[in-house]
Amino acid sequence: MAVNLQAPDTLLPIAGVRLASVNAGIRYKNRNDVLLIELEPGSHTAAVFTRNAFCAAPVHVCRHNLLHSNPRYLLINAGNANAGTGEQGMQAARASCEQVAQQGACWAEQVLPFSTGVIGQQLPVDKITAALPEAFAKLDAAGWMEASRTIMTTDTVAKAISRQVQIFGETITITGIAKGAGMIHPNMATMLAYVATDALVEKTILQDLLNEVVEETFNCITVDGDTSTNDSLIVMATGSSGVYVGGDGLPAFRQALLEICLYLAQAIVRDGEGATKFISIEVQGAATRAEARVVGNTVALSPLVKTALFASDPNWGRILAAVGRSQVDALDVSRISIWLGETLLIENGEPASTYYEELGAAETKRDEIPIRIHLGRGEAAATTWTCDFSYDYVKINAEYRS
Amino acid sequence: MAVNLQAPDTLLPIAGVRLASVNAGIRYKNRNDVLLIELEPGSHTAAVFTRNAFCAAPVHVCRHNLLHSNPRYLLINAGNANAGTGEQGMQAARASCEQVAQQGACWAEQVLPFSTGVIGQQLPVDKITAALPEAFAKLDAAGWMEASRTIMTTDTVAKAISRQVQIFGETITITGIAKGAGMIHPNMATMLAYVATDALVEKTILQDLLNEVVEETFNCITVDGDTSTNDSLIVMATGSSGVYVGGDGLPAFRQALLEICLYLAQAIVRDGEGATKFISIEVQGAATRAEARVVGNTVALSPLVKTALFASDPNWGRILAAVGRSQVDALDVSRISIWLGETLLIENGEPASTYYEELGAAETKRDEIPIRIHLGRGEAAATTWTCDFSYDYVKINAEYRS
Repeated sequence: MAVNLQAPDTLLPIAGVRLASVNAGIRYKNRNDVLLIELEPGSHTAAVFTRNAFCAAPVHVCRHNLLHSNPRYLLINAGNANAGTGEQGMQAARASCEQVAQQGACWAEQVLPFSTGVIGQQLPVDKITAALPEAFAKLDAAGWMEASRTIMTTDTVAKAISRQVQIFGETITITGIAKGAGMIHPNMATMLAYVATDALVEKTILQDLLNEVVEETFNCITVDGDTSTNDSLIVMATGSSGVYVGGDGLPAFRQALLEICLYLAQAIVRDGEGATKFISIEVQGAATRAEARVVGNTVALSPLVKTALFASDPNWGRILAAVGRSQVDALDVSRISIWLGETLLIENGEPASTYYEELGAAETKRDEIPIRIHLGRGEAAATTWTCDFSYDYVKINAEYRS
Repeated sequence: MAVNLQAPDTLLPIAGVRLASVNAGIRYKNRNDVLLIELEPGSHTAAVFTRNAFCAAPVHVCRHNLLHSNPRYLLINAGNANAGTGEQGMQAARASCEQVAQQGACWAEQVLPFSTGVIGQQLPVDKITAALPEAFAKLDAAGWMEASRTIMTTDTVAKAISRQVQIFGETITITGIAKGAGMIHPNMATMLAYVATDALVEKTILQDLLNEVVEETFNCITVDGDTSTNDSLIVMATGSSGVYVGGDGLPAFRQALLEICLYLAQAIVRDGEGATKFISIEVQGAATRAEARVVGNTVALSPLVKTALFASDPNWGRILAAVGRSQVDALDVSRISIWLGETLLIENGEPASTYYEELGAAETKRDEIPIRIHLGRGEAAATTWTCDFSYDYVKINAEYRS
């Protein structure tokens, strides 16, 4: 059901990274649900996490461990979020790190734990522990495709991409995987994403780049406005290619990282729970980027806009109403113009004289629908990506425990 | 399908108010769609309107007319919102006032126009004009029950209530009607409400009372977060009872007005599009009332919370996640406690040791579900009322042009 999204046929391995997927039986019986990622010593890791105050135990542990060491292992489980689990959940997250550290011959603080799935149930650490020997035995640089499937929950398509980029004539490789389909909103959603490269990038540069890139990618998508307790985006640079990225080499690397993150972020929207349309909302002419984001988000989250687009109904009054209720000071509607695809709907606050229903209907029939809103207040712009709201969204979320 | 809501059997007439419902054929064929309300000279009117920047033409005209005169007539049509209709829509709204003024022997500025229905289509003033003679002929103090049905759009139950209250031993009467089922959010939704009393209340006092009461009633309900372009709440005091309300008489009158508005506001939520549950979210222990409102709204608007409650699933992790992502500075989860009905879910940020699944399941099976959240930050509190999110919400909004 995902909108124009397919899993890739192959992914490029990253020198210095090995992965293993195993079935620990946490929630799913006939599929892998635990992923172990190993990084070679000397790798640098940058991360962005959910801003939800009720963040999950593994997020607390990740934040702590990243401050105190360079990670060697990432341990990810699907089916249980280890969120809303209190002190017992914290102990479970730490215990799983200790188990990995024992078998991986590193410190427990060099292990980053991640969980996704049902909130409010205690993590069965014993099941994860029991599966670890098999995971260590299976570690393999070719494990990316399998890994992209292991981390899925309500996802219907595995989300993954590889890129190669030339920096001063030398090739570096980037591979990324992500999961997430609901609870998707700026500042991370029930979303996990892992991006690795063999480039040599200093840790502070890597974190700065990630902070910039996430603002233009993962923080611009929304499915339902619900920010999850567990969202995490990790970028790992092993340096194994020996290609140093910094100074003049940065723009090309940044661009590749941006494209990887944009692909993965949009893939999450394309596979949004129950999605039948991929909608981009470009707000231009705003006084500030923050203002453009507010308007874009208000339209993107309007259940009335989303249900109309699900029905392929060019009910532009709902778009207009959503723009009008955006929390923007002194919005002057006589300066606002709105386009649906190439079709002008509103020109300077008035219905466009060139508009007729068939034009709008042709635009909303498409499965990719761009909406453009010009506020006439300044030069700032921002784009938000979202999907429509269907019967299946209700069905998935009324029946699935997330 | 409305949750525990029935239309009243009778409504009390208000001395000085006459009403007429007629079928003008604006959109509906076999039902009335135009309501005319007549106020006797000397009546005072207070009003609150949508804050949507794209507010509808009739809202512009109402605001202007209320500044310049004391209304004698209210003209309300269902089926067409006259919103997003530009300058032509403004002319249509003014023209309909002029038509009423001619037949009612008053100034056009003494007529308040209201529209509800589809956005973006021009109002057929000629149809309304053609129906006016019949409307004037039908004006009747007993017209309230019929009026409550005339203004319905996606409503499934007419919303109306009457109250009598003793002030210094004399009786005054208040009767109110409202419509609205979707696009409901603080600051008015596709909501029209008309409340009339025979009490004698000064205009400025009436407006101050209304401003206070609306903050505790209509601005505390939300169905889908979408604020409409047309929302209007009007309170009319004819003074025909001769009972002056002011000074020591105010508290009793304010209380009656509050109860009327609370009933009508909650009735709109009970009849929320596709609603199967009536949910109240009481946030206590907040630093400010604004903060309590932000948290209540975030939970009330979470599609994940609303779909879980539709499924009677005590998936409290979603409530916790919504509280956690509320835009409240420095939220300390270790001070937060959450109850579902009488059942403690979260105690000081930790899962309550007394909780087990069957307790939560029993609470969510009910058709009225109270959620209580204590933030542990201060003394302020606020309650938000909302409904669940069902297949029928999607169905209604994918198929109906509002």
